[in-house]
Amino acid sequence: MKRTISAILLCLIALLPLSAANVQDDPLYGFTSASSKVERDLETKFRAMPDPKIMRDAMQRLSARPHHVGSPYDKQNAEWILAQFKSYGLNAEIETFDVLFPTPKERVLELIGPTKYVAKLQEPPVAIDPTSNQQSEQLPTYNAYSIDGDVTAELVYVNYGLPRDYEELDRLGVSVKGKIVIARYGNSWRGIKPKVAAEHGAIGCIIYSDPRDDGYFEDDVFPEGPMRNENGVQRGSVMDMPLYPGDPTTPGVGAKGDVKRLALKDITTLTKIPTLPISYGDARPLLAALKGPMAPQGFRGALGQAYHVGPGPAKVHLKLQFNWDIKPVYDIIAKIPGSESPDQWIVRGNHHDAWVNGAEDPISGQIALLEEARALGELLKEGWKPKRTIIYCAWDGEEPMLLGSTEWAEYHGDELKKHAALYINTDGNGRGYLFAEGSHSLEKFVNGVSRDITDPEKKVSVWKRGQAGLLLRGRPEDRKEARSRPDLRIGALGSGSDYTAFIDHLGVASLNIGFGGEDDGGIYHSIYDDFYWFTHFSDGDFIYGRALAQTVGTMVLRFADADLLPYEFGDFADTIHKYNDELKALLKTRQEEIRDRNQNLDEGTFNLTSDPRRPTVAPPKDEIPPFINFAPLDNAQSALDRSAEHYSKAVKAFHAGSGGSASALQSINDKLLQAERKLTNPGGLPRRPWYQHLIYAPGFYTGYGAKTLPGVREGIEEKRYQEAEKEVVRVAQALQDYAAAIESAAEELEKLGR
Amino acid sequence: MKRTISAILLCLIALLPLSAANVQDDPLYGFTSASSKVERDLETKFRAMPDPKIMRDAMQRLSARPHHVGSPYDKQNAEWILAQFKSYGLNAEIETFDVLFPTPKERVLELIGPTKYVAKLQEPPVAIDPTSNQQSEQLPTYNAYSIDGDVTAELVYVNYGLPRDYEELDRLGVSVKGKIVIARYGNSWRGIKPKVAAEHGAIGCIIYSDPRDDGYFEDDVFPEGPMRNENGVQRGSVMDMPLYPGDPTTPGVGAKGDVKRLALKDITTLTKIPTLPISYGDARPLLAALKGPMAPQGFRGALGQAYHVGPGPAKVHLKLQFNWDIKPVYDIIAKIPGSESPDQWIVRGNHHDAWVNGAEDPISGQIALLEEARALGELLKEGWKPKRTIIYCAWDGEEPMLLGSTEWAEYHGDELKKHAALYINTDGNGRGYLFAEGSHSLEKFVNGVSRDITDPEKKVSVWKRGQAGLLLRGRPEDRKEARSRPDLRIGALGSGSDYTAFIDHLGVASLNIGFGGEDDGGIYHSIYDDFYWFTHFSDGDFIYGRALAQTVGTMVLRFADADLLPYEFGDFADTIHKYNDELKALLKTRQEEIRDRNQNLDEGTFNLTSDPRRPTVAPPKDEIPPFINFAPLDNAQSALDRSAEHYSKAVKAFHAGSGGSASALQSINDKLLQAERKLTNPGGLPRRPWYQHLIYAPGFYTGYGAKTLPGVREGIEEKRYQEAEKEVVRVAQALQDYAAAIESAAEELEKLGR
Repeated sequence: MKRTISAILLCLIALLPLSAANVQDDPLYGFTSASSKVERDLETKFRAMPDPKIMRDAMQRLSARPHHVGSPYDKQNAEWILAQFKSYGLNAEIETFDVLFPTPKERVLELIGPTKYVAKLQEPPVAIDPTSNQQSEQLPTYNAYSIDGDVTAELVYVNYGLPRDYEELDRLGVSVKGKIVIARYGNSWRGIKPKVAAEHGAIGCIIYSDPRDDGYFEDDVFPEGPMRNENGVQRGSVMDMPLYPGDPTTPGVGAKGDVKRLALKDITTLTKIPTLPISYGDARPLLAALKGPMAPQGFRGALGQAYHVGPGPAKVHLKLQFNWDIKPVYDIIAKIPGSESPDQWIVRGNHHDAWVNGAEDPISGQIALLEEARALGELLKEGWKPKRTIIYCAWDGEEPMLLGSTEWAEYHGDELKKHAALYINTDGNGRGYLFAEGSHSLEKFVNGVSRDITDPEKKVSVWKRGQAGLLLRGRPEDRKEARSRPDLRIGALGSGSDYTAFIDHLGVASLNIGFGGEDDGGIYHSIYDDFYWFTHFSDGDFIYGRALAQTVGTMVLRFADADLLPYEFGDFADTIHKYNDELKALLKTRQEEIRDRNQNLDEGTFNLTSDPRRPTVAPPKDEIPPFINFAPLDNAQSALDRSAEHYSKAVKAFHAGSGGSASALQSINDKLLQAERKLTNPGGLPRRPWYQHLIYAPGFYTGYGAKTLPGVREGIEEKRYQEAEKEVVRVAQALQDYAAAIESAAEELEKLGR
Repeated sequence: MKRTISAILLCLIALLPLSAANVQDDPLYGFTSASSKVERDLETKFRAMPDPKIMRDAMQRLSARPHHVGSPYDKQNAEWILAQFKSYGLNAEIETFDVLFPTPKERVLELIGPTKYVAKLQEPPVAIDPTSNQQSEQLPTYNAYSIDGDVTAELVYVNYGLPRDYEELDRLGVSVKGKIVIARYGNSWRGIKPKVAAEHGAIGCIIYSDPRDDGYFEDDVFPEGPMRNENGVQRGSVMDMPLYPGDPTTPGVGAKGDVKRLALKDITTLTKIPTLPISYGDARPLLAALKGPMAPQGFRGALGQAYHVGPGPAKVHLKLQFNWDIKPVYDIIAKIPGSESPDQWIVRGNHHDAWVNGAEDPISGQIALLEEARALGELLKEGWKPKRTIIYCAWDGEEPMLLGSTEWAEYHGDELKKHAALYINTDGNGRGYLFAEGSHSLEKFVNGVSRDITDPEKKVSVWKRGQAGLLLRGRPEDRKEARSRPDLRIGALGSGSDYTAFIDHLGVASLNIGFGGEDDGGIYHSIYDDFYWFTHFSDGDFIYGRALAQTVGTMVLRFADADLLPYEFGDFADTIHKYNDELKALLKTRQEEIRDRNQNLDEGTFNLTSDPRRPTVAPPKDEIPPFINFAPLDNAQSALDRSAEHYSKAVKAFHAGSGGSASALQSINDKLLQAERKLTNPGGLPRRPWYQHLIYAPGFYTGYGAKTLPGVREGIEEKRYQEAEKEVVRVAQALQDYAAAIESAAEELEKLGR
């Protein structure tokens, strides 16, 4: 009932012009009527401040030279950012950590038979692109945290290198045991590829960028177009991040001073086999030399040749040696102390290090962060004082594996657990649609802010434009929801940027925000991600840079100044319903699939469809998944629904009232701020204790991709059904505790008005 | 209830070894117990006769030289086939028709700007392939029934050239008016491409074979592999076959003697614009010279370059001139007179003409037909006499557009309507799975025969292997049915081979049969479809050739000798249910889609998702389809269900009894034989009166692909809703007449036993 009524209201609101929606008299969520008016004026003033011209200059400055961890320009950028913060009038400092950061000493990849080819492993300068020729400062193309190795073996093509790709290879009777695999980039965090290859017995791993995924299949290639040319290579970390991110020598603690460090041999997150990324120019002769079965349909890329899987006859030699050095990372931290609740913190971050020049990744996000900070500085000068403490962070070492943010979060973990109300991350930006991922207690907050930001191309709210994107391009269920659900859904956080330690390790409610979807690119982690590329093929007018600063800055202001911290739990409860349904459907589908497959095995169906000329191997018989007791989760769901409903009523009364005593609100806000922590468990997830959030985690076999209710979901997916059943109990308990915290906050909030 | 019980029985039967299923005591459908035993023995004897060695020699003989319509070797093959039939002891003769068959006089295709390229339009010999060098006898690469023309214009890439592709181009703001289009082969009968291009204002049409569809994307290319190499060209007819097939100068009548002929200018089935097929070697520079918007995702092939749609700047010159000659086609007709019911005819055909050497198309089917005929000759010598007349036909002129079969069927139309009980077609054959398309009153018959044929690779019945294919590769609903439905479904007949005139024009119950699915090829209609290719990459042992002769020969024997013609109407009724449901769902989906799209248009959603850098055009607003009165169809369905059920009970009683008087059976069989004719209407389909079957037709915009209940379905698809509603009434009446005929046959059959 509630949803239907809300949906009708939404439709009415959606038909109003934006200006009308903006001047509505309803108070902002979490504000009294009086403070809402003040806040709206403040935000309006704020949103006029970010300046595309300043952003453009800042990008040109920050991306002028390669600035990876340990490079001279990385340090210069850190000092320049510090100076910027100070020039805005903010109290800022550089906090340094010392981390393991390997760089290449030797890289050899050659096809030694039946034909010969020596891989170039070089990205040549492009004449029209002025920064592409800074070769002496560019990091060579490599995968950070690959182990050293010198291996020679036949080659096998493994598609994206995911577990299901190996299942398909098994069906073809092709094993990678003792072989070197070549996988293509995409469809998973790259570190999954060598990990899964090693699990299957491979001794080396090559990762290439197929033109199907970010080359000419998508658009013209650089410099004529935005996509990856035949020489472009995607650098990147291959650390086993789903175990833990950050400095691999100091899991769980900040890598500072005389911290105790793991020896290289004891680190569990390095790859098990040597791993190297290459261009499709270098991959083409290797793949062309493969014979054996044709690659399955889904394996085939756009190289313009037949894709075979091997093994061999292509034989390759791969030799890699690295400098295993400890390098400094420089986090720049700027603080604006809160005037009323200094112990409630709003943390905002974007990294500044890049693989090479990194105009898009990360500078397009960093320049928004700087503009927000500059604007906040202006507001401070005009007399504004935030209720809560605001902390702006420019992280170093994100690219190797979230080093700067993770070490900082680990080092300041106890304080953050006590004080942090919100972490907002950005990391690169482009033209198009607002995307938001994060804690679902922030879903309504995100929707509220996005209704107040104007899309620079279409002059409607970015919320309205996001809805339009769903209406035309969403899956059928998304399209339906986009018309009927009051709030657009935000995604769940997996990993891949600096929010990871905040949400997953500390349980700080977090968001990851950006614009995108209109400009594809194929320069990710290559030397061509630079000012020339960005200003020719992305947000060259920096109007979405401004929109990002407006969006995130508004979020910071609103969270810092709200009377009542603007968490909301109805959307969270609804999201848990969705996950709960998904898990039950997953189990059912698995049961049906395996039952069906077993029946086909019993009846010889696989043999009957095996072409003698291209024989296939039947899959193994499998245990039909048992039924799992989901009742604890269903009970927790009920408690959550009740408390969310209760809290919603209490907020409604609060909005209608005139606030309450500062101390009473402080107490409620402290409770609310702690709520997300209830979703963590100090024991962490099975086999990966660093990950303590029981609702969101990067998938063990997806990396970037989130697994929600990961203990249960991965238990089912990976056939550990007893473990899944135990995890149901742990998640249910966390949700019960969460519901109790909300219930308690609702009760206090109700008393406020009396 | 009935289906569930049958399904259980089927599962039990399926688990029995094949031999056990073969020796079952149940009579064959349409036979009494006594005649069933005789028939089984006869069929077993027959199935031992087809000889792969003889088939191999026949293929080598028939494909030794190019043998298209009008060529010397086409005539030599006709005479050789005649001699074969005679040597089997059959009464045979050549029947000649005179038909319009254009051949190239001049072909020019050149890129004249911004770069220059002159298309080769040649398929070079391949050293290892002995017949590929017969250039003096090979037909040049061309599309038959393209008009003459000399056009110069900018190029536009239109994907497969289907109506929905033009909708996508409209969204990109790209028009083909006054342009030359380049379309890729596939996803429709090729003649649809120039037709739709001309409807959109194009002035020329080039059709090329993208390596995505039958080149290296699928497997290695010829001669290393089976797929199309960069020089291979698909010849083929582009006549507007959905209007009418056969000789374009004599629609509806046999092209023989002093028949009245249309003047060239009055023929409606020639293309409206000049049309030429090319290789991907010739297409590559043309497509590479296109700019304009990136081709939508579904347009992109495997050429290893970015696909743009244009228009231009590529500008091409296309000049085509043809010899518009009347040529003879030679149908070889062999007859075995029926001993008891000579006026009930079983007709069996496969064409013998090819585009070039045509080993796969059509000789791999023709050699099965010849082996069947040889075996029937042996049985005749041993004293067997078929109850009914059997007519074996080797058609000429199938490739240009079903010339030999259509003219024969038109010429003998009145006799065929009176006498023909069944037409069985084949046209090429390969390794793998039995496929069958045809009248659904034959579905149970096909299932019955296919349970008695042994798959040469797996030594189970071809039925069982077909089921296995569905269980592993079918859509979810197919997989479910493959386990639960007693009979595997057969497809509906569209067009593309010689059954067309029989089923669509005359209403003769028809089947199209073949094996395939294991060997893909890319030599279709090229000089490389020859003995070398077939023996290296397809059924080189001719074991599926033997299986095809066994399958079709068994069908011929069983239909010729049955006491009761083995039509069955339960599967037909079930199929009509499916089509009826599909039509209702189609209308509902269209209503929802258009309602949703109109709402998005009203709300500006298309504008909000148009990227200013790559602008898109909103689609036009459309009328929401009205509701249609399906009640007549539902009522006809009920009548059909009742009569099919009634007939089924009568057959059960017949099987349990000992037959009836010959004259009574003769009368019932005459009724049954005429039943399919009730599904036709002399007025034909809207705007194409030659097509008289109201249940099956080639789609006006698909060609090969069938449209079932075509008047209604195409009415809805093409937004002629009033016409669709009228067609419901016509189809319903035909089904009522059909049901009445079955009901009457059932009543007579019931009386038989009394």
